[in-house]
Amino acid sequence: MAKHKPYYVGVDLGGTSLRAMVVDGSYRILGSQKVRTPVPAKPRVTIAKMEEVIEAALKTAGVRRADLGAVSVGAPGTIDARRGVVEQAPNLGWTEVPLAKELRQRLRLPVRVENDVNVGMMGEYRLGAGQGAQNLVGIFVGTGIGGALVLQGKLYEGACGSAGEIGHTVLMVQGPLCHCGHRGCAEALASRTAMERDVRAAIASGRKSVVLKIMKKKGHTRMTSSIIQAALKKRDRVMEEVFKRAQYYLGILAANAVNLLDPERIVIGGGIAARLQEDFVKPIRQTAYEYFLHPARAQGIKILPGQLGDDAGPLGAVVLARERLKV
Amino acid sequence: MAKHKPYYVGVDLGGTSLRAMVVDGSYRILGSQKVRTPVPAKPRVTIAKMEEVIEAALKTAGVRRADLGAVSVGAPGTIDARRGVVEQAPNLGWTEVPLAKELRQRLRLPVRVENDVNVGMMGEYRLGAGQGAQNLVGIFVGTGIGGALVLQGKLYEGACGSAGEIGHTVLMVQGPLCHCGHRGCAEALASRTAMERDVRAAIASGRKSVVLKIMKKKGHTRMTSSIIQAALKKRDRVMEEVFKRAQYYLGILAANAVNLLDPERIVIGGGIAARLQEDFVKPIRQTAYEYFLHPARAQGIKILPGQLGDDAGPLGAVVLARERLKV
Repeated sequence: MAKHKPYYVGVDLGGTSLRAMVVDGSYRILGSQKVRTPVPAKPRVTIAKMEEVIEAALKTAGVRRADLGAVSVGAPGTIDARRGVVEQAPNLGWTEVPLAKELRQRLRLPVRVENDVNVGMMGEYRLGAGQGAQNLVGIFVGTGIGGALVLQGKLYEGACGSAGEIGHTVLMVQGPLCHCGHRGCAEALASRTAMERDVRAAIASGRKSVVLKIMKKKGHTRMTSSIIQAALKKRDRVMEEVFKRAQYYLGILAANAVNLLDPERIVIGGGIAARLQEDFVKPIRQTAYEYFLHPARAQGIKILPGQLGDDAGPLGAVVLARERLKV
Repeated sequence: MAKHKPYYVGVDLGGTSLRAMVVDGSYRILGSQKVRTPVPAKPRVTIAKMEEVIEAALKTAGVRRADLGAVSVGAPGTIDARRGVVEQAPNLGWTEVPLAKELRQRLRLPVRVENDVNVGMMGEYRLGAGQGAQNLVGIFVGTGIGGALVLQGKLYEGACGSAGEIGHTVLMVQGPLCHCGHRGCAEALASRTAMERDVRAAIASGRKSVVLKIMKKKGHTRMTSSIIQAALKKRDRVMEEVFKRAQYYLGILAANAVNLLDPERIVIGGGIAARLQEDFVKPIRQTAYEYFLHPARAQGIKILPGQLGDDAGPLGAVVLARERLKV
């Protein structure tokens, strides 16, 4: 029998940052390192950077490469997890990159590549807000709206591995244009990008708001969740209205999922939820409960903010790799 | 070992008719009988009627009660299939009726009670338009819109057995009122009831239409699928417009389900689909394909009309009972 390898590396390959985290078999975080994702860049450049950041994280953790059981990467876009290929990742400008194979050759370790939303879901499911439930819907609100499903205790990936695109549920026929090309998707109504669009439109139409001022002060060109939080703290009326409307749509989105899938739990993940917790989730929960077909079910269904924040991805990547590889 | 019991009875307990069908182990239909459902009526009265219609079907089929392996009932409303209890069936005016137990005592046979949409789905899955797929979404369009899911080759019922309520997906925030009390549900946009509402509103506003005339001639007070078919045949403009709009909404509903669940197949069941087949399903398919997040997936996803019509329910009831009881 192979010697027991007690450590694992989870990697979060995002469009802006690239992070590696070293954990032991109980998911204690022993070290982690983060760098900016080189974008746009050839896959070769990014993969070399990944090896670097993994090495740096191992050093921080005081763990040798030889003691790793597996490396698992959560990557954005359309992933073929079985082949370990990033099929389409618009954020990275990648098409058909055999990421698992390339990393395996460099690291000489078992490597898994999974969809970033799926690994976030698995993190929350096993170690965070999803613990104890067997049927879960994850709604991850950020620049877009991602989704993932755990059904009957297992990650549900669908026939081709592309299940979970809850952000592209049409909630408003002929509603605002979504970047996917359709109209009225949840993502076009309630993502951070949709909120920013609505705030800017309100300001352009003459409404007063501190949002742009805060962005300038913080040196941001985008309305990040920290900007949203700061504007809400200042009781900015435009921000409050836009935020409330997004929460209303997310509540309906959650109710749609409950009526279709009858889960025990909904986890609202992503940056805004991580930062604002109940301030974000409570109104979502209220609307969802209102829209359940069977209102009596409300008691059995918990709608909770994610607990792991940015750690959900790398932790969940390790959870999923260990389940798949049985290590 | 028990003697092999080669025959089964599937019962379709509907709000208007009550039907029993006798099949052999290969699902050949040996006989069937249908009566009007006594509504409103005490459960005792209806259950006695069920025994009668089962006996009559057995007689037609030339099968003895002693040769039955099981009786399986598809019932409308909220069903607890494990306990065999009809929890809520507004169509029948029933609450908490232990139907399986009552029938078992009368028939002295294994009895299952299942949700009517779930059995229709199982019929199409094993014997009809769903054959060969492992992940399916059933959308049953009639007076309401029912739904059922087969995921990874198994009927998916959710945490509490109430999964599949796809008719109560909100597609149009603040859209028309649904009988469930919410606004903009698919059922309020694209069911036969919604179509009838829209046709009547168009006529009330002064538009010309032959629909009411056809209804009168056929002696119907409701716009049944045969009325819809007759009006379309006469190229009634109001009917054409309303029908087309319903198909558009159903296409979006199907695409929402595909984006979330990534199935291989969508089956459009119910009376309109049974009667109009491709005339009903083709425009639904076209809109759905347009709204897929991954248009390339269209080739892998078939959207088909149900093949079994009214037989889907009783046949699927037997399919499901045999899987559950292993008979």
